[in-house]
Amino acid sequence: MDLALSEAREAARNGEVPVGAVILDADNRPIARASNRVEADHDASAHAELLAMRAAARARGTTRLEDCTLVVTLEPCPMCAAAAVHFRIRRIIFGAWDPKGGGVDHGPRLFGQPACLHRPETIGGIRERENSLMLKEFFRALRHHS
Amino acid sequence: MDLALSEAREAARNGEVPVGAVILDADNRPIARASNRVEADHDASAHAELLAMRAAARARGTTRLEDCTLVVTLEPCPMCAAAAVHFRIRRIIFGAWDPKGGGVDHGPRLFGQPACLHRPETIGGIRERENSLMLKEFFRALRHHS
Repeated sequence: MDLALSEAREAARNGEVPVGAVILDADNRPIARASNRVEADHDASAHAELLAMRAAARARGTTRLEDCTLVVTLEPCPMCAAAAVHFRIRRIIFGAWDPKGGGVDHGPRLFGQPACLHRPETIGGIRERENSLMLKEFFRALRHHS
Repeated sequence: MDLALSEAREAARNGEVPVGAVILDADNRPIARASNRVEADHDASAHAELLAMRAAARARGTTRLEDCTLVVTLEPCPMCAAAAVHFRIRRIIFGAWDPKGGGVDHGPRLFGQPACLHRPETIGGIRERENSLMLKEFFRALRHHS
C-alpha cells in the first residue's frame, strides 16, 4: 500500500484525482504500478487500476493475471472492477471505500452479480483514514482554487 | 453499423472474438473505430468499445464525448458500459444482445443503478440476427478447431 500511496501522491502532483495502484505477483513482488492519468492522457478510462493491470499483462505477454493482487488506494469503480474480472485478478486490496463511485462493496457490487465469471477475493478499508484523507484534502484544495 | 460490422470481421480475421465499434459525432460522422484486440495486445480490457472511445477522446483532446454515439456489434459488457459513463457517451446503439456477458440490458444493468452518474440512451438489437450470427459462427469454428 506504500507504493500505491506514492503513486496516488504522484497523481495529485499532476492535478489528477489522487489514486494509485500496484500489481503484485504471487510472491508479493510489484510487477506494475500506475497513477491516475485521466486528464494527462485525455482518457476517461485511464484509472490507476486499469493502467496497472494493462501494464502487468503487457509485461507478461498474457491477458490473465490469475496469481496477482491489485493493491489500490480507493475502492475500484464498476469499470475497473469489471476489468479485474476480465484480467482474472486473484485478489483486490483497497484503501478508502467509495460509497458514491465504488463498484465492489457499493453500487452494482459486481463480484456479487450472478453472471460474474470470476470473483476476486477483496479486502477493503486498508489504511482507510490515510487513504480517504488524501482524497478529501485533494477535493478541498480543488474547491478553494476554483 | 456497417462500419462496426466491418471492424468485427477484421477482429475475426485476426483470431479475436468478432466485435467492432465506431464512435459517431453529433452529425453522425465516424470519428473513431476499433476492433477487439484482446489477444493481439495482451490486454483483457482491449474491447472494441473501449478502444474506440479512447481513440475518439484522444483525437479530440478531451475526456468527454457528450455529443457522441457509440455503435457496437454486441451489447457492451459491464466494463465498457461503465467506461461509457466515464466518457459521458450520449447514446449507445448495439447489435446482438449478450445475456451472459452484457452489462446494459443484462447482468448489473449499469445505467439503471441508482448511483449511476450519467445514463446514455441505449438502443439494442439493431441488425440482431446478422450480429449474433457472426459471433455464433466464430465460436462454432473455434470449437471445431480446438
